[in-house]
Amino acid sequence: MKKRILAVGSVALDTIKTPFGSVQDALGGSATFFSAAARFFAPVSVVAVVGEDFPSKHLARLKRLGVDIRGIQVDKGRTFRWKGFYDYDLNAAKTLKTELNVFQNFKPVITPEHRNASHVFLANIDPEIQMSVLSQIKKPALVACDTMNYWIESKRGGLEKLLKKVDIFLSNDSESREFSGEYNLIKAAQALLAKGPKLVVIKKGEHGVLCFSKNFTFVAPAYLLETIFDPTGAGDTFAGGFFGYLTKAGRLNEASIRKAVIYGSILASYNVESFSFDRVAGLKATAIESRYKHFRQLTSF
Amino acid sequence: MKKRILAVGSVALDTIKTPFGSVQDALGGSATFFSAAARFFAPVSVVAVVGEDFPSKHLARLKRLGVDIRGIQVDKGRTFRWKGFYDYDLNAAKTLKTELNVFQNFKPVITPEHRNASHVFLANIDPEIQMSVLSQIKKPALVACDTMNYWIESKRGGLEKLLKKVDIFLSNDSESREFSGEYNLIKAAQALLAKGPKLVVIKKGEHGVLCFSKNFTFVAPAYLLETIFDPTGAGDTFAGGFFGYLTKAGRLNEASIRKAVIYGSILASYNVESFSFDRVAGLKATAIESRYKHFRQLTSF
Repeated sequence: MKKRILAVGSVALDTIKTPFGSVQDALGGSATFFSAAARFFAPVSVVAVVGEDFPSKHLARLKRLGVDIRGIQVDKGRTFRWKGFYDYDLNAAKTLKTELNVFQNFKPVITPEHRNASHVFLANIDPEIQMSVLSQIKKPALVACDTMNYWIESKRGGLEKLLKKVDIFLSNDSESREFSGEYNLIKAAQALLAKGPKLVVIKKGEHGVLCFSKNFTFVAPAYLLETIFDPTGAGDTFAGGFFGYLTKAGRLNEASIRKAVIYGSILASYNVESFSFDRVAGLKATAIESRYKHFRQLTSF
Repeated sequence: MKKRILAVGSVALDTIKTPFGSVQDALGGSATFFSAAARFFAPVSVVAVVGEDFPSKHLARLKRLGVDIRGIQVDKGRTFRWKGFYDYDLNAAKTLKTELNVFQNFKPVITPEHRNASHVFLANIDPEIQMSVLSQIKKPALVACDTMNYWIESKRGGLEKLLKKVDIFLSNDSESREFSGEYNLIKAAQALLAKGPKLVVIKKGEHGVLCFSKNFTFVAPAYLLETIFDPTGAGDTFAGGFFGYLTKAGRLNEASIRKAVIYGSILASYNVESFSFDRVAGLKATAIESRYKHFRQLTSF
């Protein structure tokens, strides 16, 4: 079976203010960030919806990056929008406004071709949409999902159901705590593993990543950066590098998982150096390898 | 020259509340935590002052651990006391009361024997006392110092002078930011290196350690723990393992520094598993080596 990632998630317009600048209606969304990173490792098809107001230049840009955008449908209404800001503590986004808009009634129908996808990534979006997409895929070799506090609070049941169907669950530290009811992250991960997935990945932003299976634990610091410009999309970009590498590796073993976490961290480190996905969009594969080598120098003992 | 660490710092009585329990007048202080960890690697002599109220059982306990306590003088008055608490976010201590007491007029006179110490650790204490001790040591091979926000705010000049005389400067992330005026920790470290030391070590509590020299940077996550009971003294315990290992290694090169950071992190991980230094006091050297091996498993890729 030829490898191909099908990623469902949001394609959105972000209005963001950081201590270093601001941007209005920039290309964002979990599926955008994910696919811009994952494409370095495997072909990616995106399933999403945008509104009639969505600038076609953004779709063209994704296409130029090699992302299959045929699954992005254009519906009547406005595109999903997120408005937020960051203080100097860039680890915590403050949301000013979330408009689901066209995502509110999104019922994705996967094309026959896309139903053959070998790898499925369910980026942060309504768990019911995630489940609906997954159920249409014929025989996925590997399935991962991400989520956020909003769905943990409003659709916990749907999320619990989904977790029984996925191999890998990704969330950040506060989401892991909220979903599991455990403050300590080892205990949180154990509680999340008990919900079904083989692997639980906890993203701690600038403090790195923890990765738990029943058989091993992997702890990685974040790649050290002098300039963090805008952290929006870092978690989804991490997921793109992580899941992309696992797709390329073709097996879910301890060695490939550890490497995947580092590739995810590297991609995320590039993401936060610009607004939107500008830095990742312009990236060369050699830059990824060079930072991977540097990561080893930074952390080996 | 026979290796011996001379450590000046506080020996104190701590009253602490955490979400898991509380303790009154427990043995604490920067020199206590430091020496309990450093003794695993090299002989340690402590220079400090306690009041007449200081329970002699505490001195006996330090002595039983092999710590040379002849430099701990007993003055008229009350022992240095710290009262604080921690919420579930155990990374940040909240101070309720600090009583310097006998430390206010402490003018240490180092004995002729102690003046021959090969290695000097100036634990968190008034920078003027740190400088006074250092100036009495004949020919130290390696000097390190720690500090805290209190001294950065009240004795910045003394601290700046001290930094020209030390090889290694340790502080936590918020102290590094405050002292350097830089929020980004790479920039903060560069500013601190410019003040004199060859090595800057930034302790981030449960988020690990960053270590900077002009030639290399080392990033280590913290040892992952399921139970964090009381973080008091973790930074000083880290310093004890770190500086103790460097003393034992006998050279300040990249390989020894990286290993020293891991040993410091291991000792700190044991410290936070109990009140006071109970866990570190009861520790066997084999337990340290076993956690060191596990640290490698947790972090290698």
